[in-house]
Amino acid sequence: MNSSHPAPRRHANDWAALKSPLRRFLDACHADFSVETGGAVANYIPELGKADPNHFGISLATIDGYVYEVGDSREPFTIQSMSKPFVFALALDTLGADHVESAIGVEPSGDPFNSIRLDANNHPFNPMVNAGAIACSALIREAEGDGAFEYIRQALGRFAGRELGVDEAVFASESATGDRNRAIAYMLRNSGVIKDDVSKVLEVYFRQCSVLVTARDSAVMAATLANHGINPVTGEQVVTPYAVSRTLSVMTSSGMYDYAGEWIYRVGIPAKSGVGGGILAALPARLGLGSYSPRLDSHGNSVRGIKVCEALSAHYDLHMLNRSEDAHNIIADYDIGKSASRRSRRPHEQKILASHHRDVRIIELVGTLTFSNVDYVSRQLAEKPRPHFIIFDLRRVASVTRAGARLLAEGFRELAHFNVTAILSGTKRSSPEWKIVAEWTDTLSNVRNFPLLDDAIEWAEDQIVYRHGGAIEAVEMTELSEQPLLAGLGAEELAQLASLGTIRTYHAGEKIIATTEPATSLYFLRSGVVHVTLPGGIRLATIAAGMPFGEMALLEGHRSADVVADQSVTALEVLLADFERFREQHPRAGERIMRNLAQMLADRLIAANSKVNLLTAT
Amino acid sequence: MNSSHPAPRRHANDWAALKSPLRRFLDACHADFSVETGGAVANYIPELGKADPNHFGISLATIDGYVYEVGDSREPFTIQSMSKPFVFALALDTLGADHVESAIGVEPSGDPFNSIRLDANNHPFNPMVNAGAIACSALIREAEGDGAFEYIRQALGRFAGRELGVDEAVFASESATGDRNRAIAYMLRNSGVIKDDVSKVLEVYFRQCSVLVTARDSAVMAATLANHGINPVTGEQVVTPYAVSRTLSVMTSSGMYDYAGEWIYRVGIPAKSGVGGGILAALPARLGLGSYSPRLDSHGNSVRGIKVCEALSAHYDLHMLNRSEDAHNIIADYDIGKSASRRSRRPHEQKILASHHRDVRIIELVGTLTFSNVDYVSRQLAEKPRPHFIIFDLRRVASVTRAGARLLAEGFRELAHFNVTAILSGTKRSSPEWKIVAEWTDTLSNVRNFPLLDDAIEWAEDQIVYRHGGAIEAVEMTELSEQPLLAGLGAEELAQLASLGTIRTYHAGEKIIATTEPATSLYFLRSGVVHVTLPGGIRLATIAAGMPFGEMALLEGHRSADVVADQSVTALEVLLADFERFREQHPRAGERIMRNLAQMLADRLIAANSKVNLLTAT
Repeated sequence: MNSSHPAPRRHANDWAALKSPLRRFLDACHADFSVETGGAVANYIPELGKADPNHFGISLATIDGYVYEVGDSREPFTIQSMSKPFVFALALDTLGADHVESAIGVEPSGDPFNSIRLDANNHPFNPMVNAGAIACSALIREAEGDGAFEYIRQALGRFAGRELGVDEAVFASESATGDRNRAIAYMLRNSGVIKDDVSKVLEVYFRQCSVLVTARDSAVMAATLANHGINPVTGEQVVTPYAVSRTLSVMTSSGMYDYAGEWIYRVGIPAKSGVGGGILAALPARLGLGSYSPRLDSHGNSVRGIKVCEALSAHYDLHMLNRSEDAHNIIADYDIGKSASRRSRRPHEQKILASHHRDVRIIELVGTLTFSNVDYVSRQLAEKPRPHFIIFDLRRVASVTRAGARLLAEGFRELAHFNVTAILSGTKRSSPEWKIVAEWTDTLSNVRNFPLLDDAIEWAEDQIVYRHGGAIEAVEMTELSEQPLLAGLGAEELAQLASLGTIRTYHAGEKIIATTEPATSLYFLRSGVVHVTLPGGIRLATIAAGMPFGEMALLEGHRSADVVADQSVTALEVLLADFERFREQHPRAGERIMRNLAQMLADRLIAANSKVNLLTAT
Repeated sequence: MNSSHPAPRRHANDWAALKSPLRRFLDACHADFSVETGGAVANYIPELGKADPNHFGISLATIDGYVYEVGDSREPFTIQSMSKPFVFALALDTLGADHVESAIGVEPSGDPFNSIRLDANNHPFNPMVNAGAIACSALIREAEGDGAFEYIRQALGRFAGRELGVDEAVFASESATGDRNRAIAYMLRNSGVIKDDVSKVLEVYFRQCSVLVTARDSAVMAATLANHGINPVTGEQVVTPYAVSRTLSVMTSSGMYDYAGEWIYRVGIPAKSGVGGGILAALPARLGLGSYSPRLDSHGNSVRGIKVCEALSAHYDLHMLNRSEDAHNIIADYDIGKSASRRSRRPHEQKILASHHRDVRIIELVGTLTFSNVDYVSRQLAEKPRPHFIIFDLRRVASVTRAGARLLAEGFRELAHFNVTAILSGTKRSSPEWKIVAEWTDTLSNVRNFPLLDDAIEWAEDQIVYRHGGAIEAVEMTELSEQPLLAGLGAEELAQLASLGTIRTYHAGEKIIATTEPATSLYFLRSGVVHVTLPGGIRLATIAAGMPFGEMALLEGHRSADVVADQSVTALEVLLADFERFREQHPRAGERIMRNLAQMLADRLIAANSKVNLLTAT
């Protein structure tokens, strides 16, 4: 396909003409294989013989729900044997695995699809041959009675994401010519697999084979199998993950009949074909492919459809047994010495945190948390001195597999026995896998969850400060001399400044400063805690008693952030006008204050830069 | 296994006793299944009957090269049929796929391992039955002559990561009792698959079956198959990815003989057993499992080994067809309006960049770049207005699959036709997959590579500035009045300052300021560009003519960063002592300078904070 890539130059100015490489590839497949005229339209059922041999549609559905379509992707055709895997999955969920697995085997038969031979226990070899598929229809009829077909039709519709109809002419033709299947059905009743009225079972089966689908439908149905049973377009969970993996298993070992070994060897993507001309292929966690072209080869598989599958697998090296991934997905592993929270700490708190920074370890993970990833992380934990808190920063974790979730939860249990608190931050806990982690860990006292990393770090810092006897909010700081912005000023200068100000009190949640307002005063916090937040709600800093806020008024005429009281708060407000006058009278004090301001900004800049360097380290 | 997790409380203070969940699980498996005494030691070869039925070893090798071991994991036993997949892979690479695939089929036989039946073309059904394995040994002997066995022994050693020996007693016993295999071999010569002397071929085969391995060896050998043919412990590429995926295919369809369909259905991990009591299982991109317990079931598979495989698959839901991953791995998608480079820009440059910030789009990706991920990214590109530069920030990309690499390269080709430059940053281009991207893109003029994101952004910014007529380095800035640090000072004040300074010139690469030196002067850059770098070599800023450097001397007594000339540079140096004296004489100018410094620091802080906010956005 390589040759088919260069896009026409004339597009150079039409950005909308940009195509994803996959679309170009599928276009090229359609063009290259349209010329392929080998094979013949199935005619053992007269109605099938009426199909237009030139029809050719390709569709590929991704697991994020995007559907590529090329050619006659909306042309309807009868699903035929492509219904087998879906009805088997439906049977597993409807009647329970034990019931179904005791009636139908899972070993390849090595025979053609319409073989009448049964296995050693007189059961069908597997659900992909007619005998097994008829047995599935029979089982569903046992459970659903006369509503069985409607039950199946609606289920197939959920796989496809739309209501599916029936080709009555093909159905009539199927039942008129279905003697071999009748023979198979009576064999099954003879061996006790079918208890029901054979003709009623076969009506369900023949109707099921006559359901109309398109290449697009086939792609979405396959993608639902590739996506853990969740239809990626509608988001509906159609069948259980168990049913999906077992269905893909029989597709792998028996999906392409006596061509199965060759198929997994060469293409390596679970697939199912139908004599109607359809082929669907489901690559787990990747894609669903559907194609329609009625010319069949000697195995009863669509000639062009096979070529599309082979080309896709070869060009992108998608053989399911050819996976390579990296176990290392820890992208940062540091302690609060490297990245503190945005809470401004007073000197004695800083001292405690400085000497105990190793007690809070932060591990940032990315990508998908797989069995390998989480095991790797687990092994890293013991390597460093024991922290009291481990924060797992999961902002960049796109998803977690069931194996990863299980290992994660087991790891938290392990930590519980060492009195280590595990803190999750940034998890999107909506997915079913996260629910597993939750289930397993909600009983644990050592697991906490903070949406924001900074909150997690601040909480852990507070625990450390408490443990080592540092009070957090209690203290009142009334002495202006302790205000870093005023460091180095003389007693009278401080006294005069104090006399210029007014003591204000604010209740919890009250907005003290609002963005874009003119900046007309600055504040010295005496008690309580305030938050500085940017428009958009991002917290820039948490400020405790003894620190100034609104001090940027010394540089800017307008407020660039909100300041909100966390709890009831008292502060000394000094009007900018008074402050300016004070600086006029004491130029050296004014310079000193500016120097202090520059110093405070320089310290914050160093902290911010080290955070940026940490976050952007290669 | 869940019950087995709580770790003893007494460990609470012994951090070293912390175990990874996977180790606890394997310990529990060993304990739980040791009591299992069903099955019997193979005795069709007298020597095998001498094995201790109680031996039980488990080993699991991860794809990052860590090896778990439990029980008798170092107990040697003969490899027997476990040699078949590895010798098949070796044959594929040694003689070429066409040659091997024309002599040996890949369809399951449905027969026991020692079946004498051949397929329709009188060829062995597949390489996992004795007939196919003997054919493999014959093919290798064709290629390697009398050195064939040594060639095989050394290859097996590369899979295991150590030299492997032979159990001569078992070998003697095998050849003394190997009549059925002789019959098979003569059948193969009769059908032309073996051209060689049958006895010489069988000596190779019998010796190959008598090679001594341990559970640990088996795990590493399996992990090499799971890891694309690269031994995860030694890092050696033992066989090609093609040979690996095809070998895993036949293991999947035929690895467990007539139990194969059941095996993939229930366990879903490609595996191979041997009558010596070993079982190995290879889960692609995840792990290799090896177990040793000589008690065999009726299929000739180790009873405890099967239980271990089943428990591992069930407990961690590792069925290979039960994969779930998320396609979305774009974690940031922004333009330089949100995050500019660390180059300090002069006002006219700032204006150009402000009005064209959409021309440089930055897309940050994480985790493993798979088929799904890259396709998703490709589809996002057309969505926004067309940029001139797209920077792919790959710092957090752990690895890329071949499919991902291919799609990425194809996407760059597509961009080339739209005159969009693709810039890779932060790639570790060592892996074979990155070499594919390189191969495909080195011919393209629109792909550039920068190790550091900031360099990539700065380069793109420069292109934008050039395009819109803004000069970069050329200009000489001699006027102190244009120095932001001195903004607002009067003419005489500036003149006096100028008179205090000395004009210095530095050659490219010269270090002007060194970290930890006392800070005794500040500089005003008149021409050229300097870099400010932290001790770790991290670039903090790039400074162009018209800006100050070393100005932090006004706050700190020591230098906290290096400043190095990028090119030949001229600057006005003002000694701190002189500067302090100047400020003594002009307190208001001094205050103004401090205010300017605070203003500059505030601007940098805002930039740094917005970068932190961008990088930590959930």
